Order: sequence, then structure tokens, then C-alpha cells
Amino acid sequence: MAGAYQSLKEEAYEANMEIPKHDLAVYTWGNVSAFDAGKSVFAIKPSGVPYSELTSAAMVVVDLDGKIVEGKLRPSSDTQTHIVLYKEFAVKGGCKVGGIIHTHSPAAVGWAQAMRAVPLFGTTHADHIQTEIPCTPYLSKEAVERDYEKETGTLIVEHFKQHGYNPAETNMVLVGGHGPFAWGSDAAKAVYNGVVLEEVCKMALNTILVNPGAMQLPDYIVNKHYMRKHGPGAYYGQQNR
Amino acid sequence: MAGAYQSLKEEAYEANMEIPKHDLAVYTWGNVSAFDAGKSVFAIKPSGVPYSELTSAAMVVVDLDGKIVEGKLRPSSDTQTHIVLYKEFAVKGGCKVGGIIHTHSPAAVGWAQAMRAVPLFGTTHADHIQTEIPCTPYLSKEAVERDYEKETGTLIVEHFKQHGYNPAETNMVLVGGHGPFAWGSDAAKAVYNGVVLEEVCKMALNTILVNPGAMQLPDYIVNKHYMRKHGPGAYYGQQNR
Amino acid sequence: MAGAYQSLKEEAYEANMEIPKHDLAVYTWGNVSAFDAGKSVFAIKPSGVPYSELTSAAMVVVDLDGKIVEGKLRPSSDTQTHIVLYKEFAVKGGCKVGGIIHTHSPAAVGWAQAMRAVPLFGTTHADHIQTEIPCTPYLSKEAVERDYEKETGTLIVEHFKQHGYNPAETNMVLVGGHGPFAWGSDAAKAVYNGVVLEEVCKMALNTILVNPGAMQLPDYIVNKHYMRKHGPGAYYGQQNR
Amino acid sequence: MAGAYQSLKEEAYEANMEIPKHDLAVYTWGNVSAFDAGKSVFAIKPSGVPYSELTSAAMVVVDLDGKIVEGKLRPSSDTQTHIVLYKEFAVKGGCKVGGIIHTHSPAAVGWAQAMRAVPLFGTTHADHIQTEIPCTPYLSKEAVERDYEKETGTLIVEHFKQHGYNPAETNMVLVGGHGPFAWGSDAAKAVYNGVVLEEVCKMALNTILVNPGAMQLPDYIVNKHYMRKHGPGAYYGQQNR
Repeated sequence: MAGAYQSLKEEAYEANMEIPKHDLAVYTWGNVSAFDAGKSVFAIKPSGVPYSELTSAAMVVVDLDGKIVEGKLRPSSDTQTHIVLYKEFAVKGGCKVGGIIHTHSPAAVGWAQAMRAVPLFGTTHADHIQTEIPCTPYLSKEAVERDYEKETGTLIVEHFKQHGYNPAETNMVLVGGHGPFAWGSDAAKAVYNGVVLEEVCKMALNTILVNPGAMQLPDYIVNKHYMRKHGPGAYYGQQNR
Repeated sequence: MAGAYQSLKEEAYEANMEIPKHDLAVYTWGNVSAFDAGKSVFAIKPSGVPYSELTSAAMVVVDLDGKIVEGKLRPSSDTQTHIVLYKEFAVKGGCKVGGIIHTHSPAAVGWAQAMRAVPLFGTTHADHIQTEIPCTPYLSKEAVERDYEKETGTLIVEHFKQHGYNPAETNMVLVGGHGPFAWGSDAAKAVYNGVVLEEVCKMALNTILVNPGAMQLPDYIVNKHYMRKHGPGAYYGQQNR
Repeated sequence: MAGAYQSLKEEAYEANMEIPKHDLAVYTWGNVSAFDAGKSVFAIKPSGVPYSELTSAAMVVVDLDGKIVEGKLRPSSDTQTHIVLYKEFAVKGGCKVGGIIHTHSPAAVGWAQAMRAVPLFGTTHADHIQTEIPCTPYLSKEAVERDYEKETGTLIVEHFKQHGYNPAETNMVLVGGHGPFAWGSDAAKAVYNGVVLEEVCKMALNTILVNPGAMQLPDYIVNKHYMRKHGPGAYYGQQNR
Repeated sequence: MAGAYQSLKEEAYEANMEIPKHDLAVYTWGNVSAFDAGKSVFAIKPSGVPYSELTSAAMVVVDLDGKIVEGKLRPSSDTQTHIVLYKEFAVKGGCKVGGIIHTHSPAAVGWAQAMRAVPLFGTTHADHIQTEIPCTPYLSKEAVERDYEKETGTLIVEHFKQHGYNPAETNMVLVGGHGPFAWGSDAAKAVYNGVVLEEVCKMALNTILVNPGAMQLPDYIVNKHYMRKHGPGAYYGQQNR
């Protein structure tokens, strides 16, 4: 008999398998989770298992208290970070966050290690988010000692509050000195945003190499590009035709 | 019964499928159209459809007023830009433009976001075009508000007029803050020029990283390389033997 | 009848075949060895044989005096370097070094040729080692004339002693003007560390391109990341559950 | 009946097919020739034919006066450059040059367009040649007008004479503003050297990005590395065992 979380685990599994396909991480690095808002649980990659050995059955289902509700393996070591983001952005914040991805993709890590938010240089970026890609400061010593993974989630949430980023629109972030997290309305869309993030980071690096004084895209083009894909009269794609 | 535009749709389909093959774009990004000058219509990729799901039947045939003459899906959101280029360069300008490509290839986007034309540094570039790769300024606020995609086409056309670029020779351009467009005598040649553009942008970036003060190739070498491929006595390839 | 070193040769063969798979070297470049501490011998790639022609039977088994104990081909020209590292780190030093890899992966060679240790910029690095990736000075003229490959090993060992690096923790190094060596508890783990080294070098290059003044990751985050994977209460992966 | 040049054409064909495999060029760019010193002819890629359509039968056999002795297609537009190099280096110079490659590989073109010889930064480079990778100046206007491809060969030969490079040892060069040529004792070895050239150019670019003031490898290490592979007592590989 298929378990109660069969489809959630399959969603998480499929999304995790996109990580090596898009060269977002090597070996066991990176993880994606798929959230079921109704049941308040998510399925996530088990810790330290290579993608080539992954199965949907190996996915671990965890509730928002961190309790394993299904699965024999230990969940990703970043599970507590996912929990904070689901709690704060989806449950409390009311954003439709149904999936989260964390990777060590090399261009995004370059910006994260450089402690620099990625400037909004062009329309590839503006097609997806209307702000720079935020970069948090380092976690404090106290936070690291208290509860590292949970505090990483809190750091992201606090950084968004402080700078007025709306997680429904700015669905990606760099954790300073660490690497990228992204989210979306489901696990597949989270992965999509993780790929976008890496592409945009590559392009932004190319941009500053060509012109270290490159400017931000004017606001009126940012708005236009974002709105044609995400606004009420959006005309990109086939969905809202 | 095969539709009236069967072969045009197949040409467009084949050309679009070259985009992921040459790593010019991820997911649904990018589009190619194939123009039938006799019938004044072109076939173009439907908006937001991933390459893995694309079929020749899904191509959308559009006339130069933007009316869909065949196809069930919404055409690429960049359709109006294609229309302006076909109207101005092919119909009015008399250039043999039978295909147009638009992508977000990362090196070309780097130069576009840096707002810099790509200098003609070497013979790989000179084999294809005799000028720098132009880079337009940003669209004005008024133009964006008026009709964004149409005005993007107009921006390219005006930039070419103002700087004396001949679209029959300079068959590629960077839209500032956005990315590359290229064209050719048919859809396959447009894709070829899109690949050339990305390769030349990569090489030009390598060039300025090795030597920030790199010089332009002397004119007499530019002319020689261009002419041996495109001049009346061309001796590259087998065609005009 | 399978030889006495059948499984050691297979371990070395499998590990060597990971080199082209992970794009760590082209043609015949690079080599991995697998060490049997009990028998004091190791199996290593034969010199100058392309990966596509490699078989487990072609592996050469060598003892710590450099004597071939099994195999018809000449062992890797870097064999003497492997010997010194096994002798000093595993036998005398008591570290669990069961495999060594040497490659010419391009990002790592970039840092090695630049004669710069790779700063510990982020958690991808800290997940694996707690120090910068050391870079040795050039070998002296005398050492090169004496016994080049053996002295390369001695150079690494001396550099570790002088700077207080613990080879059980800092399991990778750049030989200045040359390239990377890495090691692990077996040949597969050595290859893993060789891949990590290349990824970390790529990320570190991206980092200084984005921000030439990028800072080191604070020590308390370094320790936390290293310990969650390697400390007594490690909670990454499934092994020590 | 197989033609008189069957095996020469096959050698050239196999070598040309390595170009796309090693990502040295896209589409029809690049070419390799295989020289038969006894018959004073070489087989070369036909001009403008994509690698996917290439066959050994399509190879063109040309003598040192440029006369086609076998083949229906027009030979590579760079044929005259190959002729000069075979005449000057192999016939007059007495070097064992049995194959030549020309590509537009992106890192090598970067250095060529930057008009900079590639400094000998490390052992990957020293394993193959003992000098920097030379970079010629631009061809003069007179030379371009006289006979472009022939003069490109002459430019290389003159540059080698003027700087005292020995083509038997320095078997690769960048033509300023153009791109790389390399050669070897047969066509396969020429391709090998073309791959080495691109790898070394990539590594050298990484090196100056990490450290713009990077130094040349000391001469005594250069000599050692070159000699262990190419000297009388060479001990790399299996050949001279």
C-alpha cells in the first residue's frame, strides 16, 4: 500500500533529481523539499545520499516541529532551515511556498562568499524578481552556537523583514559565506528558481567583468518585465490565456 | 491534410530545437521565427513552452499585423519585436531576413547588461560581421509604456540607422540591459548567427581579461576575412565553387 | 587465478576512471593510487595510458621502496610522490590515508600557478577542511636535481609541518607552479576530495572576481560546518546515525 | 578500389573528428591536415563542411604547390598556411611535422586577440613545451593584400626565426588577432597539442585572474618537466621503456 505521503515524496524526489541534471551541485550536495500546507509536513532529501542512489521511497517526511513522520533515513542536515522558511513565509506569512531548494551552485556561491547582493542588471533577472538578489550578513557567533540551521532560516527571515523584501516576489536569497536558497509554489518551481538564480549570477559576473561600473536596469523596465510575466495582465506563457 | 504553413512551421521548429542543443538558453527562454516573405507571415515558438515539449504543430503562424493565422497557442511574448524587424529590415529594407533568433545566452547577456558593444578583436568575429556587435541604449520610459516589445524592435532599427549599420551585414545586436537578437537568410542561419554571437562574446570577454587594453583588429584584416567568406570572390565553403 | 592484489587494483581502477568523468583531466593526465596499509603496497595508474584504454589488470602494484610487485607496465611518473605521502602521512604519521589523487584540474592549477593558497571563503570549503588549501613554494633547484618526484612529496610534507597543517584534516594541497594533490581514507574518497578541491577553487575564483577584497569566513562558522560533518557529534549523512 | 591516399585521408578524417569532441570549435570552424612526407602531399578537411557530415572520402589531398591531387571538394581556406608550415618546418627545417591543426578554441583566441604570448606559468605547460606559447604580431597590410593565407604561414615562420623558437620543441603558436595553430609528428599528435594549447590557455587565464603579477616557472623546473617527457632519459609513458 502506498503511504499517505506517496505523492509528496515523489514530488520531492523528482525535484531533487533536477539538481544534478542542471549542474547545481556535485555528489550529495544540495537538497529540495516539497511542502504539503494542508498536512503541515514536507518531504525532503535524506542527508548525504548521492543522487544516483536516490529513490522516492528514501525521501523523509518531516513535520514543522522537526519530527519525522515517515522515512527510515536521517533528513537533510538543512531541515531546520526549511522548517523556519515554511513556518515564517508560508504559514505565518501567507505566501504560497510549496517547495524550497538549497544548492552550492558555483556562481551563486561566488556572490555569497563575496558577501554581495546580486544587482538587478538586466531583464533575465527582472523576468523573475523585482529586486536585487539579497545577500545576508554572516550569522552571529551566538546564533551559530544556539542552533545553526534554525538560525540560518531566522537570518533569512530577519534580513527580508529588515530590508522590506516580500518573499512572495523575491523568492531567492544568498546566505552570506554559504550559498543560495530559493523557493516556489511547489518543489519543481523552487528548482526552476534555483536554476534562474545560478544563471543570473553567472550573467551578473560576466557583466561586472565587462564593465565594473555597470548600472542597474532602470525601474520602469524592471517593472514592465516583471509584470508581463507575473502581473494581473500577464501575457507570457499559456497559463492565463 | 498538412496545413498551408507546414514547412514553415517545421523550419521554425527545427531551428528552435537548436537553442537548447547549443546551450543558448534554459527552460523556455529564447525563441526563433521563420519568415515566408512571399506570404508575409512567420512561424514562431509558442510562449512559455519548454523545448522538451515543443512540436512543429505547436508553432504559431503570425502575419505582420500580429494576427495569428494558424496555431492554437499564444505566440512568443517577443513576437512584436520580430514583426518590426521583418517589416523594417526585410520588407522595407530589402534585406534577405528569413529568420530571427532571440536568446539569453550568458556571455552575450553579460555584454548587453554592461551596455557595451563588443569590439571587433579578431578574425572569428570578422569572419561573420565587419563591425563591432552593436549594443543599443535602454528603451525610454515612454517607449516602454507605449508598447514594450514593438518599441524594442524600433529601438534596434533606429540604432542601426543612427550608426549606419547595414542589417544585411551586421546581422546581430545586443539590446542594452536585455540580451541578443540575431537574424539570417533563414531560421537555421539565424540560429547559426546566434551561436556565433555567443562564441564571439565569450572570446571578447577572455580577451579583455587577458589584456584590458586590447586593440581592435586592423581594418585591412577585417575586410579580408569578411570578403573571403562573403565578398564576390568568396572562397570559403563549397557553395560558390 | 585472480592475483593477490585483485581488489586493490580494482579499487585503483575504479577511482582512476572517475577522473575523466568529473572533468579533472584530459588524455592521460592525472592519477590515483589505492593503498593497502597491511601489505604496505599500493596500486597506481600506469604512466601515459589514456583512460579509455585503462583496465584494472593494467594497474601497477608498487611497494614503499618503489619496487613493482605486480604489473607489466611502468607506473605513473608521480609514483615517488605517492610513496613519500604514504610513508610520512600514513605509516609514520598514523593518518588513515588509503588513497591519493593528482590531477591538472584547471581551476586548481590556476591557483597553484598563481602561487596562492585558497582562502577559506565559505561553507562549501569549511564542510571539508578547516584551513585554507595550502600552496607550497617552488621546489628548490637542488631538490629538483636530486630526485624530482620524491622531493615533491617531501616539499608537501615539510610545508605541512612548517605551517602546522594536520594531514588528517587538511587532506588537499596545491604544489606551487604545478597542481593539486588530495588524499582520503580510500581511493574513492581521495577522488571525492579532488573534486571538492576543484569546485572550491572555482568558487574562490568567482569570489575574488566579484569582490577582490573578500574576507575569510569567521572561525566560528568554519568550526561549526566542519564539526557537523566530521566532529564527534556529526549529524551529516547516514553513517553515524 | 581504395585510392592511393586512403590511409592518409583516414588519418586526417579521424583527427578532424576530434575537434568537436574536444570542444575546440563549433560548426565548420577549424581544420586538421595529415602530411605524407614521402609523397609530399597532405590530406585536409574540405572547406565549410560541418563535422557531422564529414567522411574520410571527403578529405582533400593537396600537394605542396597547392594542387589538388585527389578529392572533389575545395580544401580548407587555410590550406596555404598548412603548405608553408610543412615546407618550412618539415621539408626545409627537417622537423618531424606530420600533422597541423587550426582551431578557434575560445581561451586560445582570447590570448591571441589580446596579442599576448602565454607565459610559462606551470608544469602542465612545461610538460609539453619549454617556452611561452608565442603570439605573432598582426600581418602587415601588404602581406594581407599579397596572399593572406600563405603570408599567415610566413608570419609564423618568421616569428619563430626572429625569436629563436625551434618548431620541433615549440609546436604551437597563436596568430595575433586570429587564433591557434599547433602541429605534431602526425595528425593525432597535432590535435593533442591543440587540446593542450587550449587547456594551458585556460589555466593561464585563471592564473592571472588569481594573481595578475604571477611569475614564470623557474627554468630548472621547466627543464626537468620537459626532459622527463621528451629528453633522452624520458621516463613518462610506456614507449621508451
